[in-house]
Amino acid sequence: MSKVVWGGGALIAPVPPVLVTCGTAEQPNILTVAWTGILNTVPPKTYISVRPGRFSYPLIRESGEFVINLPTAALVRAVDFCGVRSGRDTDKWKQMGLTAAPSSHLACPLLEQSPLSLECRVTQVVPLGTHDMFVADILAVDVDEALIDRAGKLHLDRAGLLAYAHGEYFELGRKLGSFGFSVRKKPRRGAGRGSRRT
Amino acid sequence: MSKVVWGGGALIAPVPPVLVTCGTAEQPNILTVAWTGILNTVPPKTYISVRPGRFSYPLIRESGEFVINLPTAALVRAVDFCGVRSGRDTDKWKQMGLTAAPSSHLACPLLEQSPLSLECRVTQVVPLGTHDMFVADILAVDVDEALIDRAGKLHLDRAGLLAYAHGEYFELGRKLGSFGFSVRKKPRRGAGRGSRRT
Repeated sequence: MSKVVWGGGALIAPVPPVLVTCGTAEQPNILTVAWTGILNTVPPKTYISVRPGRFSYPLIRESGEFVINLPTAALVRAVDFCGVRSGRDTDKWKQMGLTAAPSSHLACPLLEQSPLSLECRVTQVVPLGTHDMFVADILAVDVDEALIDRAGKLHLDRAGLLAYAHGEYFELGRKLGSFGFSVRKKPRRGAGRGSRRT
Repeated sequence: MSKVVWGGGALIAPVPPVLVTCGTAEQPNILTVAWTGILNTVPPKTYISVRPGRFSYPLIRESGEFVINLPTAALVRAVDFCGVRSGRDTDKWKQMGLTAAPSSHLACPLLEQSPLSLECRVTQVVPLGTHDMFVADILAVDVDEALIDRAGKLHLDRAGLLAYAHGEYFELGRKLGSFGFSVRKKPRRGAGRGSRRT
């Protein structure tokens, strides 16, 4: 294919437009952050990058706590609204019908309507330019019971997760495979359904 | 909804399972990395977290260069394969029919088959446990011309991007809105199609 070269830009996609909760039960705030991801598997570490001018910035900086709530297609309007409006002059919870619920490890609340929330404690703040990166340990994960089967397996594909790519929101679409599918041996001819895959 | 509390885990989703190219034109390597994201908008900064035991780790560490190539649904088999197999004993390029092409700012090649590549120079290596985080500046972006319209606008929704969530690969599905839709004024009644949105 023919390609053009542009200057550097923040163009990784798709990313999760997560709803970050912060503050306290009495004064909770919520904002949308797309600059997030996993930094490390064990111990589990994540980050969110936040502009210092945002209303939530000092709340996170001072408390050292936040919760990452995974976004769903059902929450798309709230995800957009909480990225555009400020808690300084808008009650986003009320306007979007969102509910703050207690987390298990933090003073900071989580978002009741999210199927999976990561409770995070800040370990480092790194100024990078427009944004500061809050590096954090993931202390606990709060999961909707309806997504867990009897064997304890998480079925996150049933959550209806939301993705963000270059200014647009998308549902997740067709499932194309699971990790390792490209090297799994195919079931023997005639082995039929349910045959073991190695 | 009823929720259960688990210990901390690396459970952010969806994330982009990007194809990272590294090495040189003569000895290119390619690996899949899901622990990536944007750290900062201006100047544009990203990261990839890589296990020190991976074949690509010393290549990136010594050259200080890598390219993030966005994954597409058409590349799903290669994305999976390049995350499971090692360049130590497998020619992933040949086996997956992938092509290394020159980048514009680096000695390191990019992936010809990817519609959008970010050329990155490492500024810092941060050991975090299982993974080391390579913090990097995004120096340039190589974009498939077919995704750019006459006005110079990028239509990344036409790229067929791939998402990864908890061990499974997904196409992006239905578009649900664009940034700011939740606060845009609706067109006036009777204004018909094509009326300006503010």
